[in-house]
Order: sequence, then structure tokens, then C-alpha cells
Amino acid sequence: MEGKTIYEIRRTPEAVVEAGRVVGRYLSNRGFSLPLNVTYTGCGSSHFLSQLLAMATTRAGGKGEAVPCSELLLERIYHPLDETQLIVITSRSGETTEAIEVAEMVRNLGVSTMGVMAHESPLSKKTDTALIVPAHEESIVMTHSFTAFYTALLDVIERSYLEEGINFRSLRSAVMEVLKEEKLIKETINETDFNSAIYLGSGMLYPVALEASLKMKEMAILWSEAHPTFEFRHGFKVMAGNGTLVVMLTTKPTERHERFMRELQGQGAKVMGIGYEDFGTDLFLRIPEVSEIEVPAVYLPLIQLIAYYKAVKRGLNPDKPRFLSKVVRW
Amino acid sequence: MEGKTIYEIRRTPEAVVEAGRVVGRYLSNRGFSLPLNVTYTGCGSSHFLSQLLAMATTRAGGKGEAVPCSELLLERIYHPLDETQLIVITSRSGETTEAIEVAEMVRNLGVSTMGVMAHESPLSKKTDTALIVPAHEESIVMTHSFTAFYTALLDVIERSYLEEGINFRSLRSAVMEVLKEEKLIKETINETDFNSAIYLGSGMLYPVALEASLKMKEMAILWSEAHPTFEFRHGFKVMAGNGTLVVMLTTKPTERHERFMRELQGQGAKVMGIGYEDFGTDLFLRIPEVSEIEVPAVYLPLIQLIAYYKAVKRGLNPDKPRFLSKVVRW
Repeated sequence: MEGKTIYEIRRTPEAVVEAGRVVGRYLSNRGFSLPLNVTYTGCGSSHFLSQLLAMATTRAGGKGEAVPCSELLLERIYHPLDETQLIVITSRSGETTEAIEVAEMVRNLGVSTMGVMAHESPLSKKTDTALIVPAHEESIVMTHSFTAFYTALLDVIERSYLEEGINFRSLRSAVMEVLKEEKLIKETINETDFNSAIYLGSGMLYPVALEASLKMKEMAILWSEAHPTFEFRHGFKVMAGNGTLVVMLTTKPTERHERFMRELQGQGAKVMGIGYEDFGTDLFLRIPEVSEIEVPAVYLPLIQLIAYYKAVKRGLNPDKPRFLSKVVRW
Repeated sequence: MEGKTIYEIRRTPEAVVEAGRVVGRYLSNRGFSLPLNVTYTGCGSSHFLSQLLAMATTRAGGKGEAVPCSELLLERIYHPLDETQLIVITSRSGETTEAIEVAEMVRNLGVSTMGVMAHESPLSKKTDTALIVPAHEESIVMTHSFTAFYTALLDVIERSYLEEGINFRSLRSAVMEVLKEEKLIKETINETDFNSAIYLGSGMLYPVALEASLKMKEMAILWSEAHPTFEFRHGFKVMAGNGTLVVMLTTKPTERHERFMRELQGQGAKVMGIGYEDFGTDLFLRIPEVSEIEVPAVYLPLIQLIAYYKAVKRGLNPDKPRFLSKVVRW
């Protein structure tokens, strides 16, 4: 049953290097640099990508915000865009109806647009500039293209505000280290019984948690949610009991993470830690150390593998999720 | 089995009027007015309240943003607060550890603080100003206090930026109309089989959807989620099949809402509409017409009643949700 999706997850290291090549050319050919105020938009996984990029922008000294395409189209009153100098619109296919509609709407406002996509497409023709990151995917679920788009745009962000980009070669090595653990991840998932998965992460690991939860839904049709780590204590934790796997994404666990873990275990949940340091969770997966902004890139293939192997264990074909199509159109 | 929680939901109209009385005194005594840039913070339900308030602020011409307390404490690099002139911290009890910690942290930054709570408390002593909205609740789950806090602060927002406040008496009447439908809501929930609930809403109805989902978890321990309406088509919709109730919160359904409804029905889900206009959903609950910013206040008691009666149908006591306590401390 090894098909397109697992092949594409395994291609993440090559996709990262290819992203580096493409973005290098893009920036030097055009002398492109981001303005201070950037709004990132997309749908589904691309919205979670937008959240990561908005955070990276703010962290680097710019001002980033993320709004899903549909809300930008329908609820402009809450998103006046009056300080926005550039809107970055991401769509893997470049054919998502709402992404194209945003490009059209924004043109009428006089705000610059940048499209990010995997190939020439209707979106690339509607934006002022188009960064084409050729992360070709045949599967329905977005996997390595997410990581490739993230690293490409991270490089744009870092060079725009801090003048030094990211090291794609060393990042590729880190991603390869994660993928080397595929067998361990598969075994861990096979040996752990759970019928719902809750992902917790703070800062940039919150959008990663959201994406992990969406992968688990898309591939394994399993109930899952994501929360900013300690927000989960405020009511939501009622859902974590027997049969729940709580996945804590944290590179640097504190004493509160440990107490929280015990609280969840006391409710009957199993806790999995993913990070640099085992803090006594029931299950633990280690990731290689990278710089803080690169951390999402090493988590992404790992959380994709978790969803993939959960799907396989449930007898589902991750290449063919029910009800879903590769491009979402109206 | 009628206990504290249902009593407190039914008290919403009185709480709204009381909120109006208190806020009127507060504003005239102090000549208080919001600055342009306001950050709202809270935990759990209070964070969803913050999202509503941030949107109301932006809509009225200010600049509002919402960040959960825990993220503000741990991930300041993504929330530099450099333009924030006031931080509004909401905690029903005024005793939530993270809310108090935010007040302490912010004091050291030289940013003004406003506390919002139901009574004098540790938080009211740590903020520069305290708006006490006496929405006394004995139950664990936040119900009428959410609506009372929302209407009180909405009045502050409207008077600060637009100089005209809200009409608490007419809003009370609208809320009373909703509560008159309690029997219908109970019957609707009793007659509908569903084992998961997905709430969809756009604009201000997205935070309402989030709160609806949290109520369903807290009271009925039922799997539920919330999404910006059309975001749900992008992957997440894989979860909506037989046994799923999708609740579309929309006052003004469009042709896309109708097509989306049919798409979900085609997957086996039941669709409930809540709004002004029945657009052919399997189930429909009507709300009275109010101004757009007041809309959340009429939805809130309704979504609370849905969660309450689902809990009762499942044989659970909404007054005693497992694992939860009234105040979340560290």
C-alpha cells in the first residue's frame, strides 16, 4: 500500500534543497525584498503555513499577519488591510478559487501581491510577482510542498529583514535525520492504541500542531484537535481521557509542561513528547536540533508520518481520503 | 436534574441589563475611553471573548488584537506589544494564574492594563483600572457571564470610537426571545442523533462557533470543532459524515452557503442552520434580528442551551463536568 503520499513525504529533503535553489534565483534576479507590513493568506494547510510565515516575519522585525482567504473575501471589515503593503497568497495548485478571488479583490485595492505555488497557474498570472517552488505533488494531501514553501519563504523573510538567509543544506540533513526514524515512528504508532489525537504547541509550534491535526483528519479520519499548549487546560482538557493521545510539541519542556503531562495522565490520556528533551512522557520522539525558526521544518515530516501510519493501521488509504479532492474550487 | 448551569443560562437577560448599569456608572465616573490600539487577553472562553472584542474594536475604527494569556507570557517574541496602548485582561474569577501573571508582566513594560471580572479579586488589584461586571456564576462552565462581559465591553468600545453605546433594554428583549425557544431547542436536540458537532461561522460568528464548540465539550463531552465557515471545505470536511451535526451560524446565507450545505449533506452529515433565514438546512433555529455587533449576544445563550440539552440527553450532569474546576490555577 505504499503510494504517492509516503513517496512525497520521503521526498522532503530534496524539496527543501530545490526550494533553496529556486528562492536564491528569484531573489537575485529581481532584487526582491519584503516590505515591513505583510499579510499572508491561504486556505486549509496554506493558512497554517501563513500563520508560521506571519510569526517569522514579526520575529524578524517586520509585521506579519495571517488571514484565511475566505475571511478576507467575506469579512473585510475585520481585516481593513490599511497598513498592509504586500499580500502573499499561497495555493499549492495556484487554482484554488478563493486564492484567485483574493488576488482579484486586492488588485482593486492597490496593494501589491505575491503568489506562491508549485507551478505556473491562474494564480501566478494574477499576482504582481510569483514565487514558483516546484514541489510537485500528485497526492491530495499537502506534505513536502508545505515544508518546501515554508523554507523558501523563510529564506525570503530572513534575507529581507536580517540579511542572512537559511542554510538549506544543513536543514536538509536535519530533515533526513527525522526521516531515518520512519521505522521507529511506524512501530510507535502501531503499538499505541488511541482513537483521538490532541496536538499542543506554543509559538510557531501552534500552527505546526494545527497542521498535524489536519493531517490526522485527512489521512486517518481520526478525531483530532490542536491548541496553544497551556490553553488546553482551560476547559478543552475535558476531552483528554482513556483512548486519547496528547502530543506535546515542545523543544524546551519546563516544569509546567511536566505538571501538565501528569495532569493529563491522571485523566487517563497517553502523552507523547516530540522535541529535544524527553521529560518523562509515555512516548517520546526526538528531533535534531536546529535554529528556532527552522524548527517547524523538522517537525513537519514527522507529524505527517504519524498521520500516515495511523491511517495505514486503520486500514485506510492515505492517497484517497474520502470526500476530498486535490484542488478546492467553487 | 435542573441545576446551576441552566439557571445561569436563563439569567442572561438580567445579566445583560445589569452589565449596562455597571458600565454606564464606570464610564461616567471615570471619563474612561479606550485608546486606538488595544490588545485583549484571556484563557479558554475568555480568549474567545477577546477575539470578539478585538474584532468589534477594529470594526469600530480602533485596532484590536487578541492573544491568549499563556502565549503572551511564553512567546512574547511573536507578540511584541510595541503599538499596544492598553491590555484588557478578562478572567471571570479574577483568580486565573495566567491572567494575573500577564498583569504583572505588563506592568513592567509600562503598558496600561484594564481588568474585567465578576467581582473584586487578585486581578482587580493588579490592573490600572478594573471593570467589575457582577455576573455571578456558581457553575464551572462560563455562560451568562460571557454574554454580560461581551455586552459591557461592546458598550465601552462603541462609546470610545463611535460615541453611541448599545441599547441594553432592546438587547435584553432579543435575548429573552431566544430563551423563549428553550423547549424547541431541547426537543430539537433530543430528536436529532449526532455523535459529533461541527460549528461554522464567519467574522464575529467564528469566535461564537469556537465558544459553541467549547461548551459542547465542557458540558456534553462530545467531539466538536469550530472553523471559519468556508475554511472547513479545505480538508477538514473529511470529518463530516454520518453522525455529524454541522451547525452553520449565519445571519445572511448566500448561494455558497446553500451549495456547501448540500455538499455536507451529500457526505451524510446533518446540517443545522441558526440565523435569520432558513436556507433549507435539515434543522433550523431562528434568532431575532439585532445590529451586527449585537449578533453574538443572541447566539450565545442559544448555543449554550444546545450544549446543555445534549449533555442532559447523554445522561451527563452539566454542573459537574469531569476533570474541570471553576478556576484554573497553577
